[in-house]
Amino acid sequence: MVEFEVKSRDLLARIGRLKTKSGTVETPAFLPVINMAKQSVTPRELWEEFGCRILITNAYIIKKQQAEEAAKMGIHSFLDFPGAVMTDSGAYQILAYGDIEAAPEEIIKFQEEIDTDIATILDLPTGWGVSKKHAENTVRETINRAKMLEELKTRSDILWVGPIQGGRYLDLVAKSAREMSRIPFDIHALGSPTPVMERYIFDLLVDMIFAAKLNVPFSRPFHLFGAGHPFMFALAVALGCDLFDSAAYNIFAQDDRYLTTYGTVRLEELEYLPCSCPVCYKRDPRDLREMPKNEREAELTRHNLYVCFSEIRRIKQAIIEGRLWEHLMMRAHGHPSILQAMKRLKDYGDILERHSPIVKRSGLFFFSSIDLARPEVIRHNGRLRERYSPPEKAEVLILFPSFGPRRTGRSRRYKRILADAYAKLQIDKGQVHECFYVPPFGVVPKELSDVYPLSQFEIARPPDAETIKYVAQRIVEYVKKSRYERRIMIVESGTWQEEIAQICKENLKEESLEFITL
Amino acid sequence: MVEFEVKSRDLLARIGRLKTKSGTVETPAFLPVINMAKQSVTPRELWEEFGCRILITNAYIIKKQQAEEAAKMGIHSFLDFPGAVMTDSGAYQILAYGDIEAAPEEIIKFQEEIDTDIATILDLPTGWGVSKKHAENTVRETINRAKMLEELKTRSDILWVGPIQGGRYLDLVAKSAREMSRIPFDIHALGSPTPVMERYIFDLLVDMIFAAKLNVPFSRPFHLFGAGHPFMFALAVALGCDLFDSAAYNIFAQDDRYLTTYGTVRLEELEYLPCSCPVCYKRDPRDLREMPKNEREAELTRHNLYVCFSEIRRIKQAIIEGRLWEHLMMRAHGHPSILQAMKRLKDYGDILERHSPIVKRSGLFFFSSIDLARPEVIRHNGRLRERYSPPEKAEVLILFPSFGPRRTGRSRRYKRILADAYAKLQIDKGQVHECFYVPPFGVVPKELSDVYPLSQFEIARPPDAETIKYVAQRIVEYVKKSRYERRIMIVESGTWQEEIAQICKENLKEESLEFITL
Repeated sequence: MVEFEVKSRDLLARIGRLKTKSGTVETPAFLPVINMAKQSVTPRELWEEFGCRILITNAYIIKKQQAEEAAKMGIHSFLDFPGAVMTDSGAYQILAYGDIEAAPEEIIKFQEEIDTDIATILDLPTGWGVSKKHAENTVRETINRAKMLEELKTRSDILWVGPIQGGRYLDLVAKSAREMSRIPFDIHALGSPTPVMERYIFDLLVDMIFAAKLNVPFSRPFHLFGAGHPFMFALAVALGCDLFDSAAYNIFAQDDRYLTTYGTVRLEELEYLPCSCPVCYKRDPRDLREMPKNEREAELTRHNLYVCFSEIRRIKQAIIEGRLWEHLMMRAHGHPSILQAMKRLKDYGDILERHSPIVKRSGLFFFSSIDLARPEVIRHNGRLRERYSPPEKAEVLILFPSFGPRRTGRSRRYKRILADAYAKLQIDKGQVHECFYVPPFGVVPKELSDVYPLSQFEIARPPDAETIKYVAQRIVEYVKKSRYERRIMIVESGTWQEEIAQICKENLKEESLEFITL
Repeated sequence: MVEFEVKSRDLLARIGRLKTKSGTVETPAFLPVINMAKQSVTPRELWEEFGCRILITNAYIIKKQQAEEAAKMGIHSFLDFPGAVMTDSGAYQILAYGDIEAAPEEIIKFQEEIDTDIATILDLPTGWGVSKKHAENTVRETINRAKMLEELKTRSDILWVGPIQGGRYLDLVAKSAREMSRIPFDIHALGSPTPVMERYIFDLLVDMIFAAKLNVPFSRPFHLFGAGHPFMFALAVALGCDLFDSAAYNIFAQDDRYLTTYGTVRLEELEYLPCSCPVCYKRDPRDLREMPKNEREAELTRHNLYVCFSEIRRIKQAIIEGRLWEHLMMRAHGHPSILQAMKRLKDYGDILERHSPIVKRSGLFFFSSIDLARPEVIRHNGRLRERYSPPEKAEVLILFPSFGPRRTGRSRRYKRILADAYAKLQIDKGQVHECFYVPPFGVVPKELSDVYPLSQFEIARPPDAETIKYVAQRIVEYVKKSRYERRIMIVESGTWQEEIAQICKENLKEESLEFITL
């Protein structure tokens, strides 16, 4: 069994420690793809200068070109890298060239011979733009090849990766995942997402990852093949990808392209270097452009690596702080394709809620209705619906607007509203149950309003239309199932509260809710 | 007259060259606040290591503590800084301590004596939480002091800054700006925004900056005093602030706080350093925590400076690319207070449109209804309303849904919809005027759909509720004023198009618009 210890979690992300025979690797980990023929930054430099502890290289290409040398030296000496080495199997080459010159059995054997730490069976990638029938075949064939592994493997100190196929056919991805999870792999991986990522169809990628991830044991680390660009690392990690490889740092540098966390820029388009990494901080783009090609490529490769590794550290720090959602929101507003992917999360809100930890360190930031899919919002309303009963003595419900935790309760504005409302109502306070209506949470009984996270968040006001609708729906739901004798909603005129009141009016009978406009 | 040459513009931002007697400074420029008593990174290091070409220091504090030495040496030797030096006048000290021990005349004279490059009159700051009467007094007194300047100043090689007061009273800010602009200052500045920024009331800051900026000549550079945190640099620049000073890099470092472009983190809360600057790239937070206090403070100061200077480069690159709005969207989703400020921009859309350049280099990214305030959206609809007439032969209008430029026109999906629609309609194509309805732009006649920016944008789908409403309103407007015999809207069922159609139905008479659902 794989040794994978989870230290910290947020959404489906986790900071973990994965044990390999060449050392323990902290996840989430970005694995630079090493192609020794085109490597301007060596594995040794990755280890020493970038703190890189795991990388990936292609066993099939090595087998084809330098099989004997690699087997004799072992992959670690061959690459001159003392950390963990993962090897890919040539599946990507099948996707690119239709077929490869090696049998699945040979690829298994060769990975044992070169003494890799994490090995991949030679799966048959589904690819893109294929029929469902073809996709089914790739799933079946991959499972057949996976079943061979148990008989063929001779060593127990290598972790084996079971790729999940099915492509855009989510039912096939789920089926593939269920079948593969029955085979004792150490790690699972989503196969052939590259065409999806190259086309920036990250919303489909979300569906694919969930279809796979939810059908394999969470105790096994999950790898995303060919994850590509650092602007989507946070998304992948949030969905539970513990490992992902990318060759982008290298391929883009060869083509004079400069990575940022919000996209790629051609070096020729840069008039300023928007970065403080050791490559950039004292240079301007002209300095880079005037370098000889090989030196420029090496420097761009280094810059690209700095971007990738610091993004991983930033993601890890966000997980620790319980602010991965906030980090995702920033990345989602770097490119519309990532935001489009985030919009898909509302269909998976319950799953995110179930797996996301409850106590967090930090207050929450709310920006827009995208945030309605946050675990904290779903959790609050689930609890209110299933586990909450109002105080028994309460006969009158008064719903006050809230302006966020800093301003609620003790704020001057709230006190004035409270005083105005009671002056108009002439009700005995002892009978009243005070509640807030609070974007984006909905209804918050006053006695819960000091509880995390209801007491610790900030929201950009005014709320957007979907958030207003959501809050109004929560009020309607709460009022409908409540047993108060009177229900009164306080509304300040000329504010977003009127829009909420309007939706409540349309959805409740006249006698259900009275409105006091201040 | 100040020599200020604008090289590039985007929104109200500009990349400019400001001539001072100690060299030309490129704007937008971040001016580190230098307090020689508390400076762990010297002005010389700022010049040599950080490429800093302009800084600011407090003439009043120097006058109080080392007047003679500074006057004898000149401020450049005194600070050991060969670049441009701006001096503040002690107004902040008035705000903090009520009064200072120097008369306005002395402060003018002293700044000439120390040979500063950019000098500030001793204005009377309005401050926060003051009555309108008090605010009026500060405006009047500042103007009186400003009028003294012409008689008192003896040199012509110093640029003089005229601060604008009025605080949160926007009419007073506008009045102050109008009066100050009649005095031949070289540079204007918004005075006393610090309390507003400390309270993160950036939406009010937007109003204050516009009230000032729109009432002074655009040919004079505009300074924002005490701009604070790098997470709001982009906002300040987008609103036309060419210069801004900040002591945050230093003050926060003294207090073991680490700046990022999305907020401040206490060093003790960091488990990973989310940065690749020379301070961070090979260290972890423990390394910093274990340093002696003065060394740690110096390293944190350096890190904070790297964040500030790279943010400025990133903003400049965004201006060059015509992507400052995109950059703002990223920053706005780093902290709700910045998004809240961006929501204010919809009231200034026409002004942004008027000043923003028309031809840009890059395609646009659309994320949410916040983007409806973008100059390109406002410009398109202004033109359609005022300058566009449909082809004369057109008798039938057909409105097709669009899926963004990559998918429109030549896409398979569009062709299929087109074929299906014509099959149902049996209309002579020669009479038809094909238009698209395109979030977020609204109605786009097909003959314009290849024009920038209509041909070059990406949008996160589905559009949000406000964007849907906006597009529907544009359709209603277009249909109402058009003279077609028939108007037909094509809608794909189960998509966002149905929501648009619904709003159109509610706002148009039945005979105005026919709907074909596919």
